[in-house]
Amino acid sequence: MKKKPKILVTNDDGIYSPGIYALWEAVSQLGSVSVVAPSTEKSAVSHAITIDNLLRTKYIERSGGFKGWAVTGTPADCTKLAIKEILDHRPDLIVSGINRGSNLGNNILYSGTVSAATEGAIFNIPSIAISLDSYKIDDWNGAQIAVGKIAENVLKYGLPKGTLLNVNVPYCNPSDVKGIKVTKQGNQYFKDEFEKRMNPSRNPYYWMKGQIIDQDISLEFDGKAVSENYISVTPIHFDLTNQQYLKELEGQFNG
Amino acid sequence: MKKKPKILVTNDDGIYSPGIYALWEAVSQLGSVSVVAPSTEKSAVSHAITIDNLLRTKYIERSGGFKGWAVTGTPADCTKLAIKEILDHRPDLIVSGINRGSNLGNNILYSGTVSAATEGAIFNIPSIAISLDSYKIDDWNGAQIAVGKIAENVLKYGLPKGTLLNVNVPYCNPSDVKGIKVTKQGNQYFKDEFEKRMNPSRNPYYWMKGQIIDQDISLEFDGKAVSENYISVTPIHFDLTNQQYLKELEGQFNG
Repeated sequence: MKKKPKILVTNDDGIYSPGIYALWEAVSQLGSVSVVAPSTEKSAVSHAITIDNLLRTKYIERSGGFKGWAVTGTPADCTKLAIKEILDHRPDLIVSGINRGSNLGNNILYSGTVSAATEGAIFNIPSIAISLDSYKIDDWNGAQIAVGKIAENVLKYGLPKGTLLNVNVPYCNPSDVKGIKVTKQGNQYFKDEFEKRMNPSRNPYYWMKGQIIDQDISLEFDGKAVSENYISVTPIHFDLTNQQYLKELEGQFNG
Repeated sequence: MKKKPKILVTNDDGIYSPGIYALWEAVSQLGSVSVVAPSTEKSAVSHAITIDNLLRTKYIERSGGFKGWAVTGTPADCTKLAIKEILDHRPDLIVSGINRGSNLGNNILYSGTVSAATEGAIFNIPSIAISLDSYKIDDWNGAQIAVGKIAENVLKYGLPKGTLLNVNVPYCNPSDVKGIKVTKQGNQYFKDEFEKRMNPSRNPYYWMKGQIIDQDISLEFDGKAVSENYISVTPIHFDLTNQQYLKELEGQFNG
């Protein structure tokens, strides 16, 4: 019999979130699962790591056999600490999510969910970030089916060094999902606005707000694919070099 | 007479750091400078943004005419808030730094310095991140010369949409600098370790530590170039798609 794969589950919504529970349920069918995740919500912390403060861990249990380590740090901290200190093994697969809300286009830069998986790819462990395209979620089943399918695929084929998968699932009836679309990171972005308020002492402060703008019209882009009820799977990497511009820039300085 | 360019200066070491003062001095010779930077040090916060807390701003002054807005948020917050609320103009150039310590290879993922400039590129404003390769710095002069030269270049030629420059300067006598090298993001990484300690109540906690590993041997990579006394200039972008892997992945799912 084949050895069961070892799967590390993490997220950025925190270890007590419904999304990580749904993820744990889904991947428990594929292998032996460990959970190491932030003790509280850490959305929009991107790839932050904790170098100026200590980290604490606490072993917690939820219903139905869910157990795991709650960490006081960021999602990227969790992946590092899991691999280097908490686990007694090297995971075969890391899955981060299931995030409440999509991570599409430029917005993946802000995502703790994606960064936890990126950190896995830095350790050269096949890694997946998975997000569900809704903020009000009653039913995680569609995302569970999706992550099961994609995790199985990654366990079978692996991933190139330094590459992870950013998966976004439409929030619809699983029978309405049109299939899996391999996509590029699109041009969706958050149009920032700030709301200026006055405190009781008449000093101003700001709240960041805004709205998601997505004008992509081709299904080759992540946001458009999800809006058309496809499961979007984008292979991303952390080599940020703009290869196309190297030569021209070289000419400017040393031409 | 040509209009003076409007330059926004920001950083992640905080508005009271010596590096931002050196940057302000350097680019003041090129244009009209505004400063909007974190009120305290925000190293390693990556591209985090503040969505779960309010932001406060305070106008501050330092010696020699340095004035600017201190913001309670992250470097990326500073760029957003500067453009959308604080400034009465759109900057022609954003420069983030001068960071105490390099931002090379994989380590740029953790960098607040780089993320403040990335945020500028998201707004389609030419942006530069600049770091000096030392943690003990008495003399910012070499980095000031470098940023002056590179900022002039960007003001002259512009940058492609979505691309910024990640600049790293060797900490040496300016006369020992061998020149500017246009580089690729290399493979330098931080080899993580955690130090486990016990608090007085005998509960464990961890400190993240580790060391920088750079085994690149070609000057085409950022870390090697800096170690050989070149000023490294890497054009980076925020499209993370692994274009080379799209087709193969497509074949796995829909082949």
